[in-house]
Amino acid sequence: MPHDQESPLARLRRGHEELVLGLLRTHGPLSRGELGRLTGLSRTTLYDIVAVLVDSGAVVAAPPAGTERRRGRPVETLSLHPGAGQAIGIDFARRAVHVAAVNVAHEVIGSASAPHTEGLGWQERVDLAGRLVGGLAGGTLRLGALSGVGVGVVGPVNGAAATPPGGSPARDDGAPLRHGDLSVLLRKRFGVPVLLDNNTRLAALAEATWGAAAGVQDVLYLRLSHGVGGGLVVGGALHRGAHGLSGEFGHITAEPGGRRCSCGKDGCLETVASIGAVLDAHPGSDDLGAFLAALPGDPGARRVLAEAGARVGTVLAAVCNAIGPDVTVLGGELADAGPALFAPVERALSAHLMPVSRPRIDLRPASLGEAGGALGAIALVLHESPLLTRYPAPDPVEGT
Amino acid sequence: MPHDQESPLARLRRGHEELVLGLLRTHGPLSRGELGRLTGLSRTTLYDIVAVLVDSGAVVAAPPAGTERRRGRPVETLSLHPGAGQAIGIDFARRAVHVAAVNVAHEVIGSASAPHTEGLGWQERVDLAGRLVGGLAGGTLRLGALSGVGVGVVGPVNGAAATPPGGSPARDDGAPLRHGDLSVLLRKRFGVPVLLDNNTRLAALAEATWGAAAGVQDVLYLRLSHGVGGGLVVGGALHRGAHGLSGEFGHITAEPGGRRCSCGKDGCLETVASIGAVLDAHPGSDDLGAFLAALPGDPGARRVLAEAGARVGTVLAAVCNAIGPDVTVLGGELADAGPALFAPVERALSAHLMPVSRPRIDLRPASLGEAGGALGAIALVLHESPLLTRYPAPDPVEGT
Repeated sequence: MPHDQESPLARLRRGHEELVLGLLRTHGPLSRGELGRLTGLSRTTLYDIVAVLVDSGAVVAAPPAGTERRRGRPVETLSLHPGAGQAIGIDFARRAVHVAAVNVAHEVIGSASAPHTEGLGWQERVDLAGRLVGGLAGGTLRLGALSGVGVGVVGPVNGAAATPPGGSPARDDGAPLRHGDLSVLLRKRFGVPVLLDNNTRLAALAEATWGAAAGVQDVLYLRLSHGVGGGLVVGGALHRGAHGLSGEFGHITAEPGGRRCSCGKDGCLETVASIGAVLDAHPGSDDLGAFLAALPGDPGARRVLAEAGARVGTVLAAVCNAIGPDVTVLGGELADAGPALFAPVERALSAHLMPVSRPRIDLRPASLGEAGGALGAIALVLHESPLLTRYPAPDPVEGT
Repeated sequence: MPHDQESPLARLRRGHEELVLGLLRTHGPLSRGELGRLTGLSRTTLYDIVAVLVDSGAVVAAPPAGTERRRGRPVETLSLHPGAGQAIGIDFARRAVHVAAVNVAHEVIGSASAPHTEGLGWQERVDLAGRLVGGLAGGTLRLGALSGVGVGVVGPVNGAAATPPGGSPARDDGAPLRHGDLSVLLRKRFGVPVLLDNNTRLAALAEATWGAAAGVQDVLYLRLSHGVGGGLVVGGALHRGAHGLSGEFGHITAEPGGRRCSCGKDGCLETVASIGAVLDAHPGSDDLGAFLAALPGDPGARRVLAEAGARVGTVLAAVCNAIGPDVTVLGGELADAGPALFAPVERALSAHLMPVSRPRIDLRPASLGEAGGALGAIALVLHESPLLTRYPAPDPVEGT
């Protein structure tokens, strides 16, 4: 993670800044003296940090009304600047750009989306994202306090490394875009650090921050869409895994010796529980909307979902026995089927979980929809500080 | 985790103490002035913390030879006390007690074991542990700097809560011991906080700290013994999961509709890959030692291990696709079979991993043996500080 590349003292400094912001979040306006007592930081260190935060626009210093003067100088109190944008999230989906922003109090102050043709050039997509961000908060968003831009992309992500072949969206010339190149384009545009990750994994972080599992520490998120993927939040933070290859639930073997998967092996969950797999298994359906609409009166369609749900629940049980999530979130368009999908998933989940774990099943539908990637990209920026989750927790971590 | 129960400011104070210890670990002897500059802490805060560390015996203050005097006072330098024990680990196995201790530099300064009859009373087992600890470091171990005692027990552990029925070792009266009761006995004996967890999970943390995966951030540890269990280390820290129910790899369904497992469900990995299951599958073997000795000349025994290994690899692949560990460690007595087990495990692992992940398989035999639980209990104490892994890392985290 990015902070791993920082020097210990740079991390310490960032930690002190986050500590000050965190205390202003939880205590409201404070004087420098009060901040000194609460943080234990030296006067020099504290004044230095406050000056940087004030310059950036993240913090405002003001003499409170009716303060008695000491030696003619009013006692300044420091507070968060509600209009200052602290983090922006951008989700570069296949055929659309989604953006969102939060202020220094970690309140979402706006989000926007724009569709585009598949394969649009990256410069154009970055320009589109820039225009969407410019329009947030009625165009009044101040970016002076911006601490970072979070970015979601399609396909595997391993830090700033290039993606495995076929894993990433296409460049104008059709070659896979190196995530480093995209980060450079965005850094040029916004002038702050860029954090990038897989957008499905970011949707998991978003559900654990603002969504169906808000404030939950350990979350398993499974997305049933044209592809099947997901993400893990462990201890409130996104879990990437070695080489960025975690959350590949869609490629756990669900049917030994089954159909060949796009990943190259056989019988993956994706071959039995993706939108395409479900429609293939129900002759006459070539559109998910129609399939879902027909469910109530179509036992065949319900059987297809029951079969897919059983496979999903069996795979989820294996993962739950391994990692013991507090909450499991089911998202993607197939989850719109509701009970027709959730009931068989829960039956199989229960059958394959250790009996002692069964009473603790907490399966929830995702709640953030298409905004999840951009919101998760913001959460990624908010989680970047090694101390952000250690000190009085900011709203997103508490999920309030 | 314990630090979650601390107030933010108590955590902050502990963090400052760990920061000072961490800097002394990485920089060697430092003056108070140098510590002040490196930490950014106020003189008051720093002197206060140093005083506590010196009183505890963790840190010694001494005027370096040949320092020029300023206003008649020598410049004291502070350094870690190499003889001070910082943490003790105790593993209460079914029929033995294992103990180990590390000094404030996080070097293992001794370990010891003593067998006992199954079902020995807890007071007797705690007394036995006390005697073993007393004999460590030739009886010269100073406990003044002791920051905690880590404890490993058999069965599920959920923080300080009581264990599920049958999950924990027996009391004198045969009733399951409440982990809280054991913690009280140990706190009375050692006078410091007691951290307790499942000893197999602690063995996972130990392998990731001092063992086969030393210094590796994300580790999957599977133990094939009379039972089948394991543990996950995520981001260098032990992953407990909701209700302490993570790492239950032995109860992932490996054979749908298979044999009834002790956990109450059918076809668990434990029913096909435990010592008992392997011996059952090989008529004429009722002792693992003999079974392993016979392997070279016994194709039937190798077939049994190949079958068990295939199940193990299939389950491991599902977990690896989900969490993407850097390293997978295989321990327990069955792992002593070597290639006869590891080869089939790797074949199945490769067959069921995403092709992009296959070149990254890193399967290693465990290296700590029966000391793993006690060493992991120490690592648990060292990991307790929320900042210990954030600042200049102590040896165990780096695995050096």
